[in-house]
Amino acid sequence: MVGFLELVKKRYSVRRYSGRPVAREKIARCLEAARLAPSACNAQPWQFIVVDEPGLREKVARTTFGPLAPFNKFSLQAPVLIVVVLEKSNLVAQIGGFLRKKEFNLIDLGIAAAHFSLQAVEEGLGACILGWFDEKRVRKILGIPHGKRAGLIITLGYPETGETPEKKRKPPSAFRFYNRYGSG
Amino acid sequence: MVGFLELVKKRYSVRRYSGRPVAREKIARCLEAARLAPSACNAQPWQFIVVDEPGLREKVARTTFGPLAPFNKFSLQAPVLIVVVLEKSNLVAQIGGFLRKKEFNLIDLGIAAAHFSLQAVEEGLGACILGWFDEKRVRKILGIPHGKRAGLIITLGYPETGETPEKKRKPPSAFRFYNRYGSG
Repeated sequence: MVGFLELVKKRYSVRRYSGRPVAREKIARCLEAARLAPSACNAQPWQFIVVDEPGLREKVARTTFGPLAPFNKFSLQAPVLIVVVLEKSNLVAQIGGFLRKKEFNLIDLGIAAAHFSLQAVEEGLGACILGWFDEKRVRKILGIPHGKRAGLIITLGYPETGETPEKKRKPPSAFRFYNRYGSG
Repeated sequence: MVGFLELVKKRYSVRRYSGRPVAREKIARCLEAARLAPSACNAQPWQFIVVDEPGLREKVARTTFGPLAPFNKFSLQAPVLIVVVLEKSNLVAQIGGFLRKKEFNLIDLGIAAAHFSLQAVEEGLGACILGWFDEKRVRKILGIPHGKRAGLIITLGYPETGETPEKKRKPPSAFRFYNRYGSG
């Protein structure tokens, strides 16, 4: 591969997939990248469920959209869905998060999802991280036990097109400062 | 560089730094990797403050530890601290997060911090993401305006040693399942 920054530039949230199936060994490497991600107090508050059985996958995809919020309907086309289970942080991180008014396990969830998605690009795949879905239904469909949440769903597959659309981002001047908020 | 998975394996939370200063162009590339990170509804709920002025840096470092919680004291040694400002998500993501009981901006914060930290490894640097610090003091020191939080502090510098310690992680069998929670 090229440098990491090139990988970042190539990555985009893929919402159109070709029908091509994804080999499990590719998924395994994406999972490995996520498994090695850092987390607060090394709590690793996550588990990944690979959903590639077609009937089940459709059921899970249908939790991500509805008539009033249709924007995730594309998930029906993705050959693989990854449901990221969110656990509570370990006790030290939970107490820390409570004292600092910050749910560390959500930050950790983002880190692991980023690792997964970047490895997907490395594999020639594309991914899209979804936070919007009916968590209760997902938990029921996949048998996620009480006390654990369905944190994210990641769609995975070969992009319909290899071209990365232009990224719309804040300009660097509105994004980074030196030694004081608002400085140039 | 080598493949992305190798970068992930090489990465670790660096808590010992050599005294070697870090060129701003290296920091700029880490910032660029973070700037291009995805976020819910493309809200980009973040801004990055580079703190490399020694006096100021020490003040910020001293917000990360105290007599009862000394574990972040190593931050005094890091030649650069990055304070990641956390903004509210945009309105659509805020409503979505409220309805789904998930603070999307914290997940986004993790994604951007992961991008930053991985580019740091690519640059031969090391980083450690800290969630534990006195937010009120950090906001005051850096002039972070009302309505924005200090979300994370990332320590940055050259690692004292090039060797990556062994990572302690859940075994794959406890980490990933296929098509049903708890399956092999």
